[in-house]
Amino acid sequence: MRAHVALTPTDLSAHDLRGRTAVVIDVFRASTTVVTALANGCRMLIPVLTPEEARARAKSFPPGEVLLGGERRGEPIAGFDLGNSPLHYTPERVREKVVIFTTTNGTRALVAASPAAATAVCGLVNVEAVAAWAQARGHDLTVVCSGETGALSLEDTVAAGLLLDALAGQAAPLEMTDAARACRVVAAHYGHRLDDLLAHSSWARQLIARGYRDDLRACLALSIYADVPVLEDGVVTRAAASAATPRSSR
Amino acid sequence: MRAHVALTPTDLSAHDLRGRTAVVIDVFRASTTVVTALANGCRMLIPVLTPEEARARAKSFPPGEVLLGGERRGEPIAGFDLGNSPLHYTPERVREKVVIFTTTNGTRALVAASPAAATAVCGLVNVEAVAAWAQARGHDLTVVCSGETGALSLEDTVAAGLLLDALAGQAAPLEMTDAARACRVVAAHYGHRLDDLLAHSSWARQLIARGYRDDLRACLALSIYADVPVLEDGVVTRAAASAATPRSSR
Repeated sequence: MRAHVALTPTDLSAHDLRGRTAVVIDVFRASTTVVTALANGCRMLIPVLTPEEARARAKSFPPGEVLLGGERRGEPIAGFDLGNSPLHYTPERVREKVVIFTTTNGTRALVAASPAAATAVCGLVNVEAVAAWAQARGHDLTVVCSGETGALSLEDTVAAGLLLDALAGQAAPLEMTDAARACRVVAAHYGHRLDDLLAHSSWARQLIARGYRDDLRACLALSIYADVPVLEDGVVTRAAASAATPRSSR
Repeated sequence: MRAHVALTPTDLSAHDLRGRTAVVIDVFRASTTVVTALANGCRMLIPVLTPEEARARAKSFPPGEVLLGGERRGEPIAGFDLGNSPLHYTPERVREKVVIFTTTNGTRALVAASPAAATAVCGLVNVEAVAAWAQARGHDLTVVCSGETGALSLEDTVAAGLLLDALAGQAAPLEMTDAARACRVVAAHYGHRLDDLLAHSSWARQLIARGYRDDLRACLALSIYADVPVLEDGVVTRAAASAATPRSSR
Protein backbone atom coordinates (compact mmCIF):
# COMPACT_ATOMS: atom_id res chain seq x y z
CA MET A 1 0.00 0.00 0.00
CA ARG A 2 1.19 3.50 -0.82
CA ALA A 3 0.41 6.23 1.71
CA HIS A 4 0.50 10.01 1.46
CA VAL A 5 -0.52 12.75 3.88
CA ALA A 6 -1.84 16.12 2.71
CA LEU A 7 -0.96 18.32 5.69
CA THR A 8 -3.61 20.83 4.63
CA PRO A 9 -6.50 20.44 2.15
CA THR A 10 -4.70 22.80 -0.29
CA ASP A 11 -1.88 20.22 -0.52
CA LEU A 12 -4.42 18.10 -2.41
CA SER A 13 -4.41 20.42 -5.42
CA ALA A 14 -1.48 18.55 -7.01
CA HIS A 15 -2.67 15.12 -5.88
CA ASP A 16 -5.06 12.73 -7.57
CA LEU A 17 -7.47 11.08 -5.11
CA ARG A 18 -9.29 8.92 -7.66
CA GLY A 19 -9.17 5.22 -6.86
CA ARG A 20 -7.65 5.91 -3.44
CA THR A 21 -8.93 5.63 0.10
CA ALA A 22 -9.12 9.01 1.83
CA VAL A 23 -9.07 9.60 5.58
CA VAL A 24 -9.99 13.07 6.84
CA ILE A 25 -8.56 14.29 10.16
CA ASP A 26 -9.50 17.34 12.24
CA VAL A 27 -8.64 16.21 15.78
CA PHE A 28 -9.55 19.54 17.50
CA ARG A 29 -12.53 19.06 17.17
CA ALA A 30 -14.61 18.23 14.09
CA SER A 31 -13.37 14.67 13.49
CA THR A 32 -13.75 13.79 17.13
CA THR A 33 -17.23 15.24 17.20
CA VAL A 34 -18.30 13.29 14.09
CA VAL A 35 -16.92 10.01 15.46
CA THR A 36 -18.55 10.63 18.85
CA ALA A 37 -21.91 11.48 17.27
CA LEU A 38 -21.99 8.27 15.23
CA ALA A 39 -20.66 6.17 18.13
CA ASN A 40 -23.52 7.56 20.23
CA GLY A 41 -26.16 6.48 17.75
CA CYS A 42 -26.55 9.42 15.35
CA ARG A 43 -28.20 7.88 12.24
CA MET A 44 -26.41 10.05 9.71
CA LEU A 45 -24.44 13.26 9.58
CA ILE A 46 -24.59 15.59 6.59
CA PRO A 47 -21.55 17.87 6.22
CA VAL A 48 -22.27 21.20 4.53
CA LEU A 49 -20.07 24.23 3.90
CA THR A 50 -22.21 27.05 5.33
CA PRO A 51 -24.74 27.64 8.13
CA GLU A 52 -27.22 28.82 5.47
CA GLU A 53 -26.88 25.53 3.63
CA ALA A 54 -27.37 23.68 6.92
CA ARG A 55 -30.65 25.47 7.60
CA ALA A 56 -31.86 24.84 4.06
CA ARG A 57 -31.04 21.11 4.22
CA ALA A 58 -32.79 20.78 7.59
CA LYS A 59 -36.12 21.67 5.98
CA SER A 60 -36.16 18.36 4.09
CA PHE A 61 -36.42 16.40 7.37
CA PRO A 62 -39.22 16.18 9.94
CA PRO A 63 -38.36 18.74 12.70
CA GLY A 64 -37.97 16.19 15.53
CA GLU A 65 -35.56 14.12 13.50
CA VAL A 66 -32.89 16.64 12.61
CA LEU A 67 -30.31 18.63 14.58
CA LEU A 68 -28.07 21.48 13.40
CA GLY A 69 -24.46 21.30 14.60
CA GLY A 70 -21.14 23.01 14.07
CA GLU A 71 -19.09 26.13 14.67
CA ARG A 72 -17.64 29.28 13.21
CA ARG A 73 -14.34 30.57 14.62
CA GLY A 74 -14.59 27.82 17.22
CA GLU A 75 -17.91 29.05 18.67
CA PRO A 76 -21.47 27.63 18.39
CA ILE A 77 -23.63 29.04 15.60
CA ALA A 78 -26.68 31.13 16.55
CA GLY A 79 -29.85 29.08 16.36
CA PHE A 80 -28.03 25.75 16.04
CA ASP A 81 -28.86 22.84 18.36
CA LEU A 82 -25.28 21.69 18.94
CA GLY A 83 -21.78 23.19 18.77
CA ASN A 84 -18.59 21.48 17.70
CA SER A 85 -17.92 19.91 21.09
CA PRO A 86 -17.83 16.11 21.18
CA LEU A 87 -19.34 16.43 24.67
CA HIS A 88 -22.55 17.84 23.17
CA TYR A 89 -23.17 14.73 21.10
CA THR A 90 -24.46 12.47 23.88
CA PRO A 91 -26.61 9.41 23.20
CA GLU A 92 -29.56 11.31 24.72
CA ARG A 93 -29.19 14.11 22.17
CA VAL A 94 -28.20 12.32 18.97
CA ARG A 95 -29.53 8.74 19.01
CA GLU A 96 -31.45 8.04 15.77
CA LYS A 97 -31.12 11.70 14.78
CA VAL A 98 -29.83 13.28 11.56
CA VAL A 99 -27.16 15.91 12.24
CA ILE A 100 -26.47 18.60 9.66
CA PHE A 101 -22.96 19.77 10.40
CA THR A 102 -20.76 22.67 9.34
CA THR A 103 -17.33 23.67 10.65
CA THR A 104 -14.65 26.07 9.43
CA ASN A 105 -11.95 23.55 8.52
CA GLY A 106 -13.32 20.08 9.05
CA THR A 107 -16.18 20.03 6.56
CA ARG A 108 -13.99 21.76 3.99
CA ALA A 109 -11.51 18.89 4.23
CA LEU A 110 -14.33 16.35 3.86
CA VAL A 111 -15.52 18.06 0.70
CA ALA A 112 -11.94 18.22 -0.62
CA ALA A 113 -11.59 14.46 -0.02
CA SER A 114 -14.85 13.48 -1.70
CA PRO A 115 -13.30 12.53 -5.11
CA ALA A 116 -11.67 9.52 -3.39
CA ALA A 117 -13.03 6.00 -3.88
CA ALA A 118 -13.94 5.91 -0.18
CA THR A 119 -13.63 8.53 2.55
CA ALA A 120 -13.57 8.04 6.32
CA VAL A 121 -13.39 10.43 9.28
CA CYS A 122 -10.59 9.87 11.77
CA GLY A 123 -9.72 11.31 15.15
CA LEU A 124 -7.35 10.06 17.77
CA VAL A 125 -10.47 8.48 19.31
CA ASN A 126 -10.85 5.92 16.48
CA VAL A 127 -7.44 5.79 14.83
CA GLU A 128 -7.00 2.01 15.17
CA ALA A 129 -10.44 1.30 13.78
CA VAL A 130 -9.80 3.54 10.77
CA ALA A 131 -6.47 1.80 10.13
CA ALA A 132 -8.26 -1.57 10.11
CA TRP A 133 -10.91 -0.18 7.75
CA ALA A 134 -8.31 1.28 5.37
CA GLN A 135 -6.34 -1.96 5.45
CA ALA A 136 -9.49 -3.96 4.63
CA ARG A 137 -10.14 -1.73 1.61
CA GLY A 138 -6.59 -2.31 0.33
CA HIS A 139 -6.36 0.77 -1.90
CA ASP A 140 -3.61 3.35 -1.72
CA LEU A 141 -4.26 5.83 1.07
CA THR A 142 -4.32 9.61 1.25
CA VAL A 143 -4.74 11.19 4.66
CA VAL A 144 -6.21 14.70 4.48
CA CYS A 145 -5.42 16.84 7.51
CA SER A 146 -7.60 19.88 8.04
CA GLY A 147 -4.73 21.88 9.48
CA GLU A 148 -5.20 25.35 10.91
CA THR A 149 -5.77 28.36 8.64
CA GLY A 150 -3.72 26.93 5.79
CA ALA A 151 -0.81 25.50 7.79
CA LEU A 152 0.01 22.19 9.42
CA SER A 153 -1.64 21.49 12.76
CA LEU A 154 0.38 19.42 15.19
CA GLU A 155 -2.53 17.32 16.46
CA ASP A 156 -3.66 16.31 12.96
CA THR A 157 -0.07 15.46 12.04
CA VAL A 158 0.20 13.22 15.11
CA ALA A 159 -3.09 11.46 14.35
CA ALA A 160 -1.99 10.90 10.74
CA GLY A 161 1.29 9.42 11.97
CA LEU A 162 -0.45 7.12 14.46
CA LEU A 163 -2.81 5.95 11.71
CA LEU A 164 0.19 5.09 9.53
CA ASP A 165 1.88 3.35 12.46
CA ALA A 166 -1.19 1.16 12.89
CA LEU A 167 -1.23 0.42 9.15
CA ALA A 168 2.50 -0.31 9.07
CA GLY A 169 1.83 -3.00 11.66
CA GLN A 170 -0.72 -4.61 9.31
CA ALA A 171 0.09 -3.66 5.71
CA ALA A 172 3.44 -4.85 4.45
CA PRO A 173 5.05 -3.11 2.75
CA LEU A 174 3.82 0.42 3.39
CA GLU A 175 5.32 2.76 0.79
CA MET A 176 5.39 6.28 2.22
CA THR A 177 5.79 9.76 0.78
CA ASP A 178 8.01 12.26 2.57
CA ALA A 179 4.98 13.82 4.26
CA ALA A 180 3.85 10.41 5.51
CA ARG A 181 7.31 9.71 6.94
CA ALA A 182 7.42 13.11 8.63
CA CYS A 183 4.04 12.44 10.27
CA ARG A 184 5.29 9.14 11.68
CA VAL A 185 8.34 10.85 13.16
CA VAL A 186 6.13 13.50 14.77
CA ALA A 187 3.77 10.79 16.04
CA ALA A 188 6.69 8.84 17.51
CA HIS A 189 7.53 11.96 19.51
CA TYR A 190 4.03 12.89 20.68
CA GLY A 191 2.28 9.50 20.69
CA HIS A 192 3.26 8.73 24.27
CA ARG A 193 2.80 12.29 25.51
CA LEU A 194 -0.43 13.39 23.86
CA ASP A 195 -1.07 15.85 26.69
CA ASP A 196 1.88 17.91 25.41
CA LEU A 197 -0.38 18.81 22.47
CA LEU A 198 -2.47 20.93 24.86
CA ALA A 199 0.54 23.25 25.24
CA HIS A 200 2.26 22.81 21.86
CA SER A 201 -0.70 23.04 19.48
CA SER A 202 -1.53 26.68 18.78
CA TRP A 203 -5.18 25.84 18.15
CA ALA A 204 -5.35 23.94 21.45
CA ARG A 205 -3.99 26.98 23.28
CA GLN A 206 -6.65 29.17 21.68
CA LEU A 207 -9.45 26.74 22.53
CA ILE A 208 -8.24 26.35 26.13
CA ALA A 209 -8.18 30.13 26.52
CA ARG A 210 -11.82 30.10 25.47
CA GLY A 211 -12.79 27.45 28.02
CA TYR A 212 -12.73 24.29 25.90
CA ARG A 213 -10.14 22.28 27.82
CA ASP A 214 -12.63 19.47 28.54
CA ASP A 215 -13.36 19.15 24.84
CA LEU A 216 -9.68 18.77 24.09
CA ARG A 217 -9.26 16.09 26.76
CA ALA A 218 -12.07 14.16 25.04
CA CYS A 219 -10.28 14.60 21.68
CA LEU A 220 -7.03 13.11 23.07
CA ALA A 221 -8.58 9.82 24.21
CA LEU A 222 -6.75 7.34 22.01
CA SER A 223 -8.74 4.65 20.16
CA ILE A 224 -11.72 4.59 22.51
CA TYR A 225 -14.17 4.06 19.64
CA ALA A 226 -14.32 1.30 17.05
CA ASP A 227 -16.63 3.30 14.79
CA VAL A 228 -15.54 4.42 11.34
CA PRO A 229 -17.66 7.24 9.92
CA VAL A 230 -17.65 7.00 6.12
CA LEU A 231 -18.73 9.66 3.63
CA GLU A 232 -20.84 8.43 0.72
CA ASP A 233 -23.00 10.55 -1.58
CA GLY A 234 -22.57 13.52 0.75
CA VAL A 235 -23.75 11.66 3.85
CA VAL A 236 -21.64 10.31 6.73
CA THR A 237 -22.76 7.03 8.32
CA ARG A 238 -21.04 4.27 10.29
CA ALA A 239 -19.14 1.76 8.18
CA ALA A 240 -20.68 -1.70 8.37
CA ALA A 241 -19.10 -3.44 11.36
CA SER A 242 -17.60 -6.22 9.24
CA ALA A 243 -15.78 -3.71 7.05
CA ALA A 244 -14.56 -1.70 10.01
CA THR A 245 -13.11 -3.66 12.85
CA PRO A 246 -13.79 -6.73 14.97
CA ARG A 247 -14.28 -4.62 18.12
CA SER A 248 -17.61 -3.12 19.07
CA SER A 249 -17.67 0.39 20.45
CA ARG A 250 -20.77 0.06 22.55
CA MET B 1 11.37 35.84 18.12
CA ARG B 2 8.41 34.14 16.48
CA ALA B 3 9.16 31.45 13.91
CA HIS B 4 6.99 29.77 11.29
CA VAL B 5 7.76 27.26 8.56
CA ALA B 6 5.86 27.17 5.27
CA LEU B 7 6.37 23.55 4.23
CA THR B 8 5.64 24.47 0.61
CA PRO B 9 5.54 27.90 -1.07
CA THR B 10 1.74 27.58 -1.42
CA ASP B 11 1.50 27.53 2.39
CA LEU B 12 2.52 31.21 2.19
CA SER B 13 -0.79 32.23 0.63
CA ALA B 14 -2.39 32.77 4.05
CA HIS B 15 0.76 34.20 5.65
CA ASP B 16 2.00 37.78 5.73
CA LEU B 17 5.76 38.05 5.14
CA ARG B 18 5.97 41.82 5.46
CA GLY B 19 8.39 42.96 8.16
CA ARG B 20 9.68 39.41 8.65
CA THR B 21 12.94 37.68 7.84
CA ALA B 22 12.51 34.94 5.24
CA VAL B 23 14.80 31.95 4.76
CA VAL B 24 14.35 29.88 1.61
CA ILE B 25 15.33 26.20 1.64
CA ASP B 26 15.68 23.73 -1.24
CA VAL B 27 18.32 21.30 0.05
CA PHE B 28 18.26 18.96 -3.01
CA ARG B 29 19.73 20.96 -4.75
CA ALA B 30 19.05 24.61 -5.53
CA SER B 31 19.85 26.10 -2.10
CA THR B 32 23.06 24.12 -1.84
CA THR B 33 24.07 25.18 -5.34
CA VAL B 34 23.42 28.86 -4.60
CA VAL B 35 25.39 28.74 -1.34
CA THR B 36 28.23 26.87 -3.01
CA ALA B 37 28.37 29.32 -5.92
CA LEU B 38 28.63 32.35 -3.62
CA ALA B 39 31.08 30.59 -1.29
CA ASN B 40 33.24 29.89 -4.34
CA GLY B 41 33.36 33.53 -5.35
CA CYS B 42 30.36 34.05 -7.65
CA ARG B 43 29.80 37.82 -7.61
CA MET B 44 26.02 37.69 -7.85
CA LEU B 45 23.29 35.23 -8.74
CA ILE B 46 20.08 36.34 -10.42
CA PRO B 47 17.14 33.95 -9.90
CA VAL B 48 14.59 33.94 -12.72
CA LEU B 49 11.50 31.82 -13.33
CA THR B 50 12.10 30.55 -16.88
CA PRO B 51 15.00 29.56 -19.15
CA GLU B 52 13.76 32.17 -21.66
CA GLU B 53 14.00 34.89 -19.01
CA ALA B 54 17.52 33.66 -18.13
CA ARG B 55 18.67 34.00 -21.73
CA ALA B 56 17.12 37.46 -22.03
CA ARG B 57 18.76 38.69 -18.80
CA ALA B 58 22.16 37.35 -19.89
CA LYS B 59 22.20 39.81 -22.81
CA SER B 60 22.60 42.75 -20.42
CA PHE B 61 26.04 41.47 -19.31
CA PRO B 62 29.34 41.17 -21.19
CA PRO B 63 29.51 37.55 -22.48
CA GLY B 64 32.63 36.55 -20.49
CA GLU B 65 31.08 37.74 -17.25
CA VAL B 66 27.84 35.80 -17.17
CA LEU B 67 26.92 32.12 -16.84
CA LEU B 68 23.53 30.46 -17.25
CA GLY B 69 22.70 27.83 -14.64
CA GLY B 70 19.79 25.70 -13.52
CA GLU B 71 17.60 22.73 -14.30
CA ARG B 72 14.24 21.53 -15.50
CA ARG B 73 12.91 18.21 -14.14
CA GLY B 74 16.29 17.81 -12.43
CA GLU B 75 18.31 17.88 -15.70
CA PRO B 76 20.59 20.59 -17.16
CA ILE B 77 18.98 23.01 -19.60
CA ALA B 78 20.08 22.89 -23.26
CA GLY B 79 22.58 25.66 -24.02
CA PHE B 80 23.16 26.53 -20.35
CA ASP B 81 26.69 26.68 -18.91
CA LEU B 82 25.93 24.98 -15.62
CA GLY B 83 23.31 22.60 -14.24
CA ASN B 84 21.87 22.52 -10.74
CA SER B 85 24.73 20.53 -9.24
CA PRO B 86 26.70 22.23 -6.49
CA LEU B 87 29.72 20.35 -7.86
CA HIS B 88 29.52 22.41 -11.09
CA TYR B 89 29.98 25.68 -9.25
CA THR B 90 33.73 25.44 -8.60
CA PRO B 91 35.91 28.50 -7.91
CA GLU B 92 37.44 28.03 -11.39
CA ARG B 93 34.03 28.30 -13.03
CA VAL B 94 32.23 30.93 -11.00
CA ARG B 95 34.76 33.30 -9.37
CA GLU B 96 33.78 36.93 -10.13
CA LYS B 97 31.04 35.72 -12.46
CA VAL B 98 27.34 36.59 -12.60
CA VAL B 99 25.13 33.48 -12.62
CA ILE B 100 21.60 33.67 -13.97
CA PHE B 101 19.79 30.79 -12.37
CA THR B 102 16.47 29.03 -12.86
CA THR B 103 15.18 25.86 -11.20
CA THR B 104 11.77 24.20 -11.01
CA ASN B 105 11.08 24.67 -7.29
CA GLY B 106 13.92 26.68 -5.80
CA THR B 107 13.61 29.94 -7.70
CA ARG B 108 9.84 29.81 -7.31
CA ALA B 109 10.29 29.73 -3.53
CA LEU B 110 12.72 32.67 -3.70
CA VAL B 111 10.20 34.72 -5.65
CA ALA B 112 7.43 33.73 -3.21
CA ALA B 113 9.61 34.93 -0.31
CA SER B 114 10.54 38.25 -1.84
CA PRO B 115 7.88 40.36 0.02
CA ALA B 116 9.84 39.73 3.25
CA ALA B 117 11.99 42.46 4.82
CA ALA B 118 15.08 40.31 4.13
CA THR B 119 15.47 36.96 2.40
CA ALA B 120 18.32 34.47 2.69
CA VAL B 121 19.08 31.14 1.03
CA CYS B 122 19.74 28.20 3.32
CA GLY B 123 20.96 24.65 2.80
CA LEU B 124 22.26 22.16 5.29
CA VAL B 125 25.70 23.42 4.19
CA ASN B 126 25.21 26.85 5.81
CA VAL B 127 22.45 26.34 8.34
CA GLU B 128 24.42 27.67 11.34
CA ALA B 129 25.51 30.78 9.47
CA VAL B 130 21.92 31.52 8.43
CA ALA B 131 20.74 31.10 12.02
CA ALA B 132 23.33 33.65 13.17
CA TRP B 133 22.29 36.03 10.37
CA ALA B 134 18.57 35.68 11.23
CA GLN B 135 19.33 36.15 14.91
CA ALA B 136 21.32 39.33 14.17
CA ARG B 137 18.37 40.74 12.22
CA GLY B 138 16.03 40.09 15.14
CA HIS B 139 12.77 40.10 13.17
CA ASP B 140 10.22 37.32 13.26
CA LEU B 141 11.21 34.48 10.96
CA THR B 142 9.42 32.60 8.20
CA VAL B 143 11.21 29.62 6.68
CA VAL B 144 9.99 28.84 3.17
CA CYS B 145 10.61 25.26 2.11
CA SER B 146 10.51 24.54 -1.60
CA GLY B 147 9.06 21.09 -1.07
CA GLU B 148 8.53 18.65 -3.89
CA THR B 149 5.65 19.13 -6.36
CA GLY B 150 3.38 20.77 -3.85
CA ALA B 151 4.09 18.54 -0.86
CA LEU B 152 6.54 18.54 2.05
CA SER B 153 10.05 17.33 1.28
CA LEU B 154 11.81 15.55 4.10
CA GLU B 155 15.23 17.16 3.51
CA ASP B 156 13.84 20.71 3.55
CA THR B 157 11.87 19.91 6.70
CA VAL B 158 15.03 18.67 8.39
CA ALA B 159 17.04 21.74 7.37
CA ALA B 160 14.25 24.02 8.64
CA GLY B 161 14.26 22.16 11.96
CA LEU B 162 18.05 22.37 12.32
CA LEU B 163 17.89 26.10 11.57
CA LEU B 164 15.32 26.52 14.35
CA ASP B 165 17.44 24.39 16.69
CA ALA B 166 20.39 26.71 16.09
CA LEU B 167 18.16 29.74 16.68
CA ALA B 168 16.65 28.24 19.83
CA GLY B 169 20.18 28.03 21.19
CA GLN B 170 20.60 31.76 20.62
CA ALA B 171 17.20 33.45 20.63
CA ALA B 172 15.26 33.16 23.84
CA PRO B 173 12.38 32.74 23.81
CA LEU B 174 11.64 31.25 20.40
CA GLU B 175 7.87 31.22 19.85
CA MET B 176 7.01 28.49 17.36
CA THR B 177 4.01 27.67 15.21
CA ASP B 178 2.88 24.05 14.93
CA ALA B 179 4.77 23.66 11.64
CA ALA B 180 7.96 24.97 13.23
CA ARG B 181 7.62 22.50 16.11
CA ALA B 182 6.99 19.62 13.73
CA CYS B 183 10.15 20.51 11.79
CA ARG B 184 12.23 20.43 14.96
CA VAL B 185 10.87 17.00 15.85
CA VAL B 186 11.72 15.72 12.36
CA ALA B 187 15.18 17.32 12.60
CA ALA B 188 15.78 15.70 15.99
CA HIS B 189 15.16 12.36 14.31
CA TYR B 190 17.22 12.88 11.14
CA GLY B 191 19.84 15.39 12.32
CA HIS B 192 22.25 12.71 13.47
CA ARG B 193 21.53 10.36 10.56
CA LEU B 194 21.39 12.67 7.57
CA ASP B 195 22.43 9.81 5.28
CA ASP B 196 19.01 8.24 5.92
CA LEU B 197 17.62 11.05 3.78
CA LEU B 198 19.23 9.42 0.74
CA ALA B 199 16.81 6.51 1.19
CA HIS B 200 13.82 8.22 2.81
CA SER B 201 13.48 11.34 0.64
CA SER B 202 11.53 10.54 -2.51
CA TRP B 203 13.32 13.27 -4.46
CA ALA B 204 16.70 11.90 -3.32
CA ARG B 205 15.74 8.45 -4.59
CA GLN B 206 14.81 9.91 -7.96
CA LEU B 207 18.04 11.90 -8.22
CA ILE B 208 20.15 8.90 -7.21
CA ALA B 209 18.45 6.79 -9.86
CA ARG B 210 19.54 9.43 -12.37
CA GLY B 211 23.17 9.37 -11.23
CA TYR B 212 23.29 12.36 -8.88
CA ARG B 213 24.38 10.60 -5.67
CA ASP B 214 27.56 12.72 -5.44
CA ASP B 215 25.47 15.89 -5.62
CA LEU B 216 23.34 14.70 -2.75
CA ARG B 217 26.38 13.86 -0.63
CA ALA B 218 27.55 17.45 -1.18
CA CYS B 219 24.10 18.70 -0.13
CA LEU B 220 24.25 16.76 3.17
CA ALA B 221 27.51 18.32 4.39
CA LEU B 222 26.33 20.12 7.51
CA SER B 223 27.40 23.75 8.09
CA ILE B 224 30.57 23.65 5.97
CA TYR B 225 30.02 27.20 4.72
CA ALA B 226 29.69 30.45 6.66
CA ASP B 227 28.23 32.29 3.67
CA VAL B 228 24.69 33.65 3.74
CA PRO B 229 23.28 34.39 0.30
CA VAL B 230 20.76 37.22 0.57
CA LEU B 231 18.17 38.28 -2.01
CA GLU B 232 17.80 42.01 -2.52
CA ASP B 233 16.17 43.75 -5.48
CA GLY B 234 16.05 40.48 -7.37
CA VAL B 235 19.77 39.73 -6.95
CA VAL B 236 21.46 37.25 -4.60
CA THR B 237 24.81 38.25 -3.09
CA ARG B 238 26.75 37.28 0.02
CA ALA B 239 25.63 39.02 3.20
CA ALA B 240 28.32 41.32 4.58
CA ALA B 241 30.50 39.21 6.87
CA SER B 242 29.69 41.26 9.97
CA ALA B 243 25.98 40.71 9.50
CA ALA B 244 26.40 37.03 8.84
CA THR B 245 28.65 35.19 11.21
CA PRO B 246 32.01 35.49 12.92
CA ARG B 247 33.42 32.52 11.02
CA SER B 248 34.95 32.90 7.56
CA SER B 249 34.32 30.21 4.98
CA ARG B 250 37.48 30.72 2.95
